[in-house]
Amino acid sequence: MSEVLLPQPYLLFLGDTTEPGYAKTAFGLRDWAGERCIGEYACQGATVSTGLPFLTPEQAYAAGARSMVIGVANSGGYIPFTWHAALLRAMEAGLDIISGMHARLRDFDVLREAADQLGRKLIDVRQPPAGIPIASGAPRKGKRLLTLGTDCALGKKYTALALARAFSNRGIDATFRATGQTGILIAGGGIPMDAVVADFAAGAAEMLSPEADANHWDVIEGQGSLFHPAYAGVSLALLHGSQPDVIVVCHEPGRKHVLGHPGYEVPGIAETIDLALRLGSRTRPSIRCAGVSLNTAKLDEESARRLIAWESERLGLPVADPMRGGASFDRLVESCLA
Amino acid sequence: MSEVLLPQPYLLFLGDTTEPGYAKTAFGLRDWAGERCIGEYACQGATVSTGLPFLTPEQAYAAGARSMVIGVANSGGYIPFTWHAALLRAMEAGLDIISGMHARLRDFDVLREAADQLGRKLIDVRQPPAGIPIASGAPRKGKRLLTLGTDCALGKKYTALALARAFSNRGIDATFRATGQTGILIAGGGIPMDAVVADFAAGAAEMLSPEADANHWDVIEGQGSLFHPAYAGVSLALLHGSQPDVIVVCHEPGRKHVLGHPGYEVPGIAETIDLALRLGSRTRPSIRCAGVSLNTAKLDEESARRLIAWESERLGLPVADPMRGGASFDRLVESCLA
Repeated sequence: MSEVLLPQPYLLFLGDTTEPGYAKTAFGLRDWAGERCIGEYACQGATVSTGLPFLTPEQAYAAGARSMVIGVANSGGYIPFTWHAALLRAMEAGLDIISGMHARLRDFDVLREAADQLGRKLIDVRQPPAGIPIASGAPRKGKRLLTLGTDCALGKKYTALALARAFSNRGIDATFRATGQTGILIAGGGIPMDAVVADFAAGAAEMLSPEADANHWDVIEGQGSLFHPAYAGVSLALLHGSQPDVIVVCHEPGRKHVLGHPGYEVPGIAETIDLALRLGSRTRPSIRCAGVSLNTAKLDEESARRLIAWESERLGLPVADPMRGGASFDRLVESCLA
Repeated sequence: MSEVLLPQPYLLFLGDTTEPGYAKTAFGLRDWAGERCIGEYACQGATVSTGLPFLTPEQAYAAGARSMVIGVANSGGYIPFTWHAALLRAMEAGLDIISGMHARLRDFDVLREAADQLGRKLIDVRQPPAGIPIASGAPRKGKRLLTLGTDCALGKKYTALALARAFSNRGIDATFRATGQTGILIAGGGIPMDAVVADFAAGAAEMLSPEADANHWDVIEGQGSLFHPAYAGVSLALLHGSQPDVIVVCHEPGRKHVLGHPGYEVPGIAETIDLALRLGSRTRPSIRCAGVSLNTAKLDEESARRLIAWESERLGLPVADPMRGGASFDRLVESCLA
């Protein structure tokens, strides 16, 4: 499979970051790919830490690391000049560099020339692979689950990761399939759906979750929302190409408006399920919704439990917050596998 | 506006084509942009003609032509070696070269070097413009019509062209907005939606039909189909970004299966209208369907008239074949403008 594949294990690079909110990629890697993260490294002045051991690039390479991942973002998504020395040192130490940022590593002359001279790779995970086909729409073997959201940035990736892990813990053969840069870094591979040329987007989804053993589950990270004024086309292409047997709809209670689009109300959960099943049945007639993932991070334990129970009753479906786990999450997992 | 803009008038190049089906672009330009087509040119052995005068590149340049358009395709969408001499001669004569094919003109060393040396442009209209924004979803002034299809390749472009022409004939300020390579050649500008990166597809549609005078109509060429297993995402992005006041659904009677996807039935007209209005109302709450365009090219006059009448009765909407015109088409135009 010609998806992006990444040299591992990782050394996580934190730049000169003082704001934990900018280190979401590093935290996501620590939480979901901890076994592939050897340590962290940062410029002087950084105050954010993942809690992993601080290693110089030389120490990390000696300990087995094969790449350094830029685990932080800044508001522009760019790669500041002040990080270059650290990136060069990592390449000298034998590490490839991996970035999920908008800026391309190869667009910096000094990084490109150093990499070419040292024989290192500069890997931009937002770059889709070559050879993506037009979607065939043909049915394929294997089971697939897709997370869908009522909006962006409310838990589609974490829900897919938690479900894939829960499937594996039950002895089921399951693979998390990443569609965005952080997911790709966590999985060590995937396709950045948002960077694929529109005509090939459904084909990319087919490529990402290829035919598999009848009992194998691909658990696919959703993107955008079918109601999003800018990204709905990406979401629909991913839904059509993934041909999911099962969808799980992700929602953040209390979010009123689409992030960055204050004129657009977040759609209801039931409305989202209805539209997703209608559209998804075009390529997977047996598609069904197994339940709902609620992001209750802003609620206390008791409020979260009450809301989850109430929504489950109202919708007639299993509802859980995968980050809280518990019996409600077990019911959601069972509903997926039913 | 930074959409593709093309040097005109055109000399139409027919290659060495002997199969009229491969010259659809040239015929489309003759039919819809005849005032911008000075003549035709071909290699020895070509038997297909548009009926326009045969001019050498030198004669065409003297007559005012500023570009030679590759008006034929072949089954691979490539640019055969045997055309190179003609393309070089055109550049020597002063003409830029325009291509709507998959192959990029600049990928041929001999063409690129000749163009650079002579100061000519090699224009691939499948190349989207730079600077396409993420869609804002914000409402904008001006009226917009979008054609939508039950499948690909059944008349969305011709319907949009015919409606734009009919609007203009009634003294209404209207602009045809092209979204595919042939449409772009006809219009002299536009955005190839299928080549835009997925995250920017709705933004491209916003860019293509920008805010305009309240009485101005943009008549936008649809792409794909909301039911297409490979291209539905493109269709949805175009629908959301276009924010149409009015849609016209295009259908070919008798087509049973999606072109190239025999496992997929062509959806019904009523089902297509219903889904398009449901999805389109997200960014244009007042969206309505003005009627249906039937491609009756395979029917005789009497059968076409009967079918149009019957479908109009059944759907409760104006139905017409824009290529046949007549009273039914007048009713469709009036319904669009109502």
